[in-house]
Amino acid sequence: MATIMHMQFHSHSIGKQTSVQIILPDDTKPPYRTLYLLHGWSDNETAWMRHTQIEQYAQEHQLAVIMPDVGLSYYTDMAYGGNYFTYVTEELPAHLERNLPLSTAAENRYVAGLSMGGFGSFKWAINAPERFRAAASFSGALLVDEVLTLQLQAGDQTRKPYMQAILGPERTVHGTNGDLLPLLDELVAHKKQLPALFQYCGTEDFLHDINLQFRAHVESLGITYTYNESSGDHNWPYWDACIKNWLSTLKQQQLL
Amino acid sequence: MATIMHMQFHSHSIGKQTSVQIILPDDTKPPYRTLYLLHGWSDNETAWMRHTQIEQYAQEHQLAVIMPDVGLSYYTDMAYGGNYFTYVTEELPAHLERNLPLSTAAENRYVAGLSMGGFGSFKWAINAPERFRAAASFSGALLVDEVLTLQLQAGDQTRKPYMQAILGPERTVHGTNGDLLPLLDELVAHKKQLPALFQYCGTEDFLHDINLQFRAHVESLGITYTYNESSGDHNWPYWDACIKNWLSTLKQQQLL
Amino acid sequence: MATIMHMQFHSHSIGKQTSVQIILPDDTKPPYRTLYLLHGWSDNETAWMRHTQIEQYAQEHQLAVIMPDVGLSYYTDMAYGGNYFTYVTEELPAHLERNLPLSTAAENRYVAGLSMGGFGSFKWAINAPERFRAAASFSGALLVDEVLTLQLQAGDQTRKPYMQAILGPERTVHGTNGDLLPLLDELVAHKKQLPALFQYCGTEDFLHDINLQFRAHVESLGITYTYNESSGDHNWPYWDACIKNWLSTLKQQQLL
Amino acid sequence: MATIMHMQFHSHSIGKQTSVQIILPDDTKPPYRTLYLLHGWSDNETAWMRHTQIEQYAQEHQLAVIMPDVGLSYYTDMAYGGNYFTYVTEELPAHLERNLPLSTAAENRYVAGLSMGGFGSFKWAINAPERFRAAASFSGALLVDEVLTLQLQAGDQTRKPYMQAILGPERTVHGTNGDLLPLLDELVAHKKQLPALFQYCGTEDFLHDINLQFRAHVESLGITYTYNESSGDHNWPYWDACIKNWLSTLKQQQLL
Repeated sequence: MATIMHMQFHSHSIGKQTSVQIILPDDTKPPYRTLYLLHGWSDNETAWMRHTQIEQYAQEHQLAVIMPDVGLSYYTDMAYGGNYFTYVTEELPAHLERNLPLSTAAENRYVAGLSMGGFGSFKWAINAPERFRAAASFSGALLVDEVLTLQLQAGDQTRKPYMQAILGPERTVHGTNGDLLPLLDELVAHKKQLPALFQYCGTEDFLHDINLQFRAHVESLGITYTYNESSGDHNWPYWDACIKNWLSTLKQQQLL
Repeated sequence: MATIMHMQFHSHSIGKQTSVQIILPDDTKPPYRTLYLLHGWSDNETAWMRHTQIEQYAQEHQLAVIMPDVGLSYYTDMAYGGNYFTYVTEELPAHLERNLPLSTAAENRYVAGLSMGGFGSFKWAINAPERFRAAASFSGALLVDEVLTLQLQAGDQTRKPYMQAILGPERTVHGTNGDLLPLLDELVAHKKQLPALFQYCGTEDFLHDINLQFRAHVESLGITYTYNESSGDHNWPYWDACIKNWLSTLKQQQLL
Repeated sequence: MATIMHMQFHSHSIGKQTSVQIILPDDTKPPYRTLYLLHGWSDNETAWMRHTQIEQYAQEHQLAVIMPDVGLSYYTDMAYGGNYFTYVTEELPAHLERNLPLSTAAENRYVAGLSMGGFGSFKWAINAPERFRAAASFSGALLVDEVLTLQLQAGDQTRKPYMQAILGPERTVHGTNGDLLPLLDELVAHKKQLPALFQYCGTEDFLHDINLQFRAHVESLGITYTYNESSGDHNWPYWDACIKNWLSTLKQQQLL
Repeated sequence: MATIMHMQFHSHSIGKQTSVQIILPDDTKPPYRTLYLLHGWSDNETAWMRHTQIEQYAQEHQLAVIMPDVGLSYYTDMAYGGNYFTYVTEELPAHLERNLPLSTAAENRYVAGLSMGGFGSFKWAINAPERFRAAASFSGALLVDEVLTLQLQAGDQTRKPYMQAILGPERTVHGTNGDLLPLLDELVAHKKQLPALFQYCGTEDFLHDINLQFRAHVESLGITYTYNESSGDHNWPYWDACIKNWLSTLKQQQLL
């Protein structure tokens, strides 16, 4: 059985007390291989634990799993609000690595997430490729501008004020560290080593087209990349299947 | 001994899963008299429980205590972000009153808070005076514009992006439901019944002058109002003393 | 989405502070139909939430779900220790029904549990048949004496001191309110109305024979009783499937 | 501000999932000096956090604080039940020292507790004197047999079944590792190094006489020992004052 911890501490990057849900494996000698597992829009640090069997998978694969809470930040240093990208990618790992026996070697570090967190996962992996062995996006909102356009076209105005807080009045990631495809191009152009990337999106997902668009671009780049196509919608049963399948796949491929 | 509950649910007003810390008294027949107790800047729903003896006071006075989490919102429907004032004053009470035996009679409802939450307490009481018997502000950031000016004069720029998210580019409560003094004037002009107001601020507090300014205005209005002056700083030992003293005072005055 | 609560309070029956995990449905007018969901040996109040999708099923069926912590008590008023049966069946419902809008009508009350909790579920249903519409046992340790014999035959002495605390030096439920078959016989003899009973046990389960033994006896009684036979072991994937299947079955049979 | 963690894991010694409340200091380089802080009868791992300002004191003194849950075990390997002494003194430290940067040097380790936990603190310190720099008992139930006699004389039979579970039918610590005075005598006779012992008991406490009895014996032994006499009852305000005073005293005496 695994050890589970709910942690609270004060983050300077986001200016407030914040919570992290953590799983540590029980039968492995530390330091532990570590997976950062990112939640989606409207969820918090408890979502993955409550809605999937991640506790069981963590124990099965003897992985530490780190689940932060980033609110409605899109894993971004917000125009008006906290620096959530800095929090998740710098302050949180530093805080945890000081207090927990997490391996700091890139070969032992993984990141994954769903929807907004799928974007967060690839954003982190692409902005810090030297820090991870593999990264996964499940139903990822990978092209943020396209996702926003899609939601507005669908008549959904509710996210507008939140996206302004995140991205500023222009509401675009264009030219920022959240503009993933140009950053990927650049990495490939400079022959940088990338973590193995895994992209999952169910065929019923409203983000399926955007995921296909991302896939088409990435497949043209000739990097270590896996696209997993299957039936599935934008919901927890699919994401539980995703994380389970991905960890097994990593193991089969001796990446874990 | 009291019953304590940590609750999570999805709020429409703020667009995400949110947490509430709750204390219910154990020796009283419901419905319970209810105190909404509001946290300050950088804190969350657990702050009052962790830093004061509120659990003991709740049991002593047989009060239900509701402690929401509002992040860095200043109890405001944010310009760029969630509708936190609506959440705390409408959605949360409705959600709780559906699920818990909280008295809905104004004579059994109370609100208090510290610093940003002191502002939140008076903001709620002044915008909905018919809903409370008494309200308290401890070290309240009661005049938000003056507090912002004070912080900028002190060279503290860190809150600027957060305050822009809350109040918009102008960063002012002027003319809004957070502009407390004009609203108070209007209530008095229209001879509206107000809850009993209690204002506490320690003499060492950096918000002491602003509290004196608020006091001077309120004392000119001839309403039921108590100012508690004592030594004290902007810290938890003072706020623990405040909440303890306030509840005892309410009891002595047969307001509780 | 559902509302989830982790509650703590002091129980007189077991002499200490205790915890309860609670789910309330979000789209139904209270009072809520209520399921008491009981954990197994070595688990606590968080087990069902962590290892199954009960939060989702509760919302789907608009059920309140109550998950107490009973330690290693076998849902028994212990020979040496707390009165856990009284706690779960009397003190806890009274405490919750005072503070939460749970339906108290038998037609709206359900109980289920796994392994030790499967025993607890049927023990409660058989000792208070007038309080429930339906009860389920998943991989239930239904015949406690036979389970103890089985474990001792398997060379497992570790539970001996715990079972002595629970049952006293004799370590038997014979003649007590945990001796389920004679109690069932008596109910049938007196033509008492029973809740619909559902018994699940996987064919790979080490308790399968004991469950068949229980089944054989019950089927001879001519009561409303369903035995669900399928492949399955003594583990969480099976129990997640059980609770999901059982709630759907109740709905199909218009029992829920 | 400190980092706080609520941890759950499966303990072999007590046969079940158990919880630990942990505070880690935020401004010190690990490994951290560590205080094991033990709860009293009827409480759990959250009691010290909820009823005292231990979070603040931990940060002030840059101490890690470990607060286990031992139920109604009297920090004893129970006659009928779990091995709680082994859990707290062996399994828990091993588990935590594997996962957290706690100093393992005796000079950096401390133990304290209240009432039943005051007994637990001295029991641990006396049975493993080489592991601690200092130990404190606040309102300690230090002479268990005398405490039991006192309660029975007062007509309180409620603890009887619990004490039988803990100590067996004889309900005595005589001749066991919970029989503190003979063990102390032996340590002194063998000139063993002892941690600095601090004993606190309020003059209004129903355990005051028993504490004086313990004190009289210990003072005759010529060991490093401090008795703190003051007004105080068997309640949380006194224990909050105790832990605050003790940590300050340790600092003044350069023991912390």
